[in-house]
Amino acid sequence: MTKTDILIIGAGPVGLFTVFEAGLLQLRCHLVDALPQPGGQLAEIYPKKPIYDIPGFPSVGAGELVDNLMEQIAPFKPGFTLGERAETLEKLADGSFLVTTNEGTQINAPVIAIAAGLGSFEPRKPPIDNIETFEQHGVAYMIKEPEDFRGKRVVISGGGDSALDWAIHLSEITAELTLVHRRKGFRGALDSVDKVERLAAEGRINLITEAQVIGLKGDGQLKEVVINHKTEGEFSKATDFFIPLFGLTPKMGPLQDWGLELDPKEGIFVDTFDYQTNIPGIFAIGDINTYPGKLKLILCGFHEATLMVQSAFKIARPDGRLSFKYTTVNGVHGF
Amino acid sequence: MTKTDILIIGAGPVGLFTVFEAGLLQLRCHLVDALPQPGGQLAEIYPKKPIYDIPGFPSVGAGELVDNLMEQIAPFKPGFTLGERAETLEKLADGSFLVTTNEGTQINAPVIAIAAGLGSFEPRKPPIDNIETFEQHGVAYMIKEPEDFRGKRVVISGGGDSALDWAIHLSEITAELTLVHRRKGFRGALDSVDKVERLAAEGRINLITEAQVIGLKGDGQLKEVVINHKTEGEFSKATDFFIPLFGLTPKMGPLQDWGLELDPKEGIFVDTFDYQTNIPGIFAIGDINTYPGKLKLILCGFHEATLMVQSAFKIARPDGRLSFKYTTVNGVHGF
Repeated sequence: MTKTDILIIGAGPVGLFTVFEAGLLQLRCHLVDALPQPGGQLAEIYPKKPIYDIPGFPSVGAGELVDNLMEQIAPFKPGFTLGERAETLEKLADGSFLVTTNEGTQINAPVIAIAAGLGSFEPRKPPIDNIETFEQHGVAYMIKEPEDFRGKRVVISGGGDSALDWAIHLSEITAELTLVHRRKGFRGALDSVDKVERLAAEGRINLITEAQVIGLKGDGQLKEVVINHKTEGEFSKATDFFIPLFGLTPKMGPLQDWGLELDPKEGIFVDTFDYQTNIPGIFAIGDINTYPGKLKLILCGFHEATLMVQSAFKIARPDGRLSFKYTTVNGVHGF
Repeated sequence: MTKTDILIIGAGPVGLFTVFEAGLLQLRCHLVDALPQPGGQLAEIYPKKPIYDIPGFPSVGAGELVDNLMEQIAPFKPGFTLGERAETLEKLADGSFLVTTNEGTQINAPVIAIAAGLGSFEPRKPPIDNIETFEQHGVAYMIKEPEDFRGKRVVISGGGDSALDWAIHLSEITAELTLVHRRKGFRGALDSVDKVERLAAEGRINLITEAQVIGLKGDGQLKEVVINHKTEGEFSKATDFFIPLFGLTPKMGPLQDWGLELDPKEGIFVDTFDYQTNIPGIFAIGDINTYPGKLKLILCGFHEATLMVQSAFKIARPDGRLSFKYTTVNGVHGF
């Protein structure tokens, strides 16, 4: 079990910056995020897109902003649990919280900061009846560790950038890489489409277009996918893995069962004194919260994180004396 | 008379960023600042100092941050009235405000954003009885246009960086440059001290240490300064200008007479919905305001500016439709 001062749920830009402001008060942070890397949707959805409304940056790449924030918080050595979703919340006898992820990881902290953006990005699952029985047994919706697929037979399905890029990348290490897409054309970057078609011509990607994976077979472990082709009809294909990459959709998910007062569309209700929720010790900052006048902008989340950690300090260090220091005078010192 | 949508009092980082957020809503801004350049204390007091707590910048020079903000707001073509202090406020029959500066410049706007930081930085004046009668007639507390001193006799007094740097700079264009300092040693950067001493040895700066300017003479226009030297006693010196550079001290100044509810130490009271003051249409953002939980940090002012312009829009464009656009999708378009 990991113990920390502030458990931050969501490692997007606001969650990351919380580590900095907490660090200035000598509070340690641990971040949990369902995505396999920090940065939230900036890293996952549009890493190459320029952002224009971060104060002091006439233009900054989304991925570059994440890199900058990671550098800014490095002195404070945050902990990360990535690729896991915060699932259940328990209040312990000492007043602290115990959060357990979907993979059983447990984190204990007196303060929780929910910085979950638009919610956790859940993969869009294809409508295959028994798909959930094969999750963790051959079916994966995102790729955390490419090495898991070395020497294996892999079937990817999807027609966007994610499907194209992973097909190209994994074809270098898999025994066999099949890409199934229901149309003839792809939605991804032209360059990636060209590359996939070249690899298909070279026999390094087995490209099946105008087809869909409609069934999964195996006993406990995935053994075959059933493919339905527009003209050739149904056929089975032996495989070790099936990776449907149909994009991500934001969901508030398990947080909705934590007893927080919220509007499912607008977000979690907080006050503007310290962005605390109806549960003392649990704060909500960034796009996931709502209050009169709220704007869902990254720069607003930065402000909210900064005010929040002042109250977090009082909870995490009931005997501590809060001293507000200007970094301009003393610079930044890590732990 | 200048007409604009939002009159911003204070051209520090928060005032500057207000132009950006207002610009996204197609509102025009005009800034007034008592200092001769934009950037507030970042530009005036510590342009070379690194700042560590701006989100996304592990470290950024204060002057560099100002430059970045100026670039970020450039598409929205803000107006500037610099080196003048907003002095009086008048409410016109149409509900808009008319602000007049200490030099008589008038600006008319339906919305005022007070982003005056710790207040206007007032020069520390030396205790010379009749000094105010010579203001604008030979006495200057800051240098707006160095060319005004070309070919003239100038007496500077002070021992800090500002006095040293201006002595060096002006000595290139003045007929005679005298630097009076009450101690033997200087407080400024070693490099500047060396340079002043070298210029003194070369006869290009007339350096008088252990002395103070204690009197001013002239009829309407300054003609002489009276200098008191530690060992040599009092003597007069003919001059065209006397420039005492004893630093700046922040003062809320004339804003205190505008009918705003405020605490002279904490700042102007605002709500956290849109950072409006007790006078509808007048907002206060950044270090000059106060509310429960307030932290006097630049990043908080950025947030306040962003929420504020939403309400400003409704006042400035009563018939307009507010559309909230993410710049990430469409980029930034100026006027």
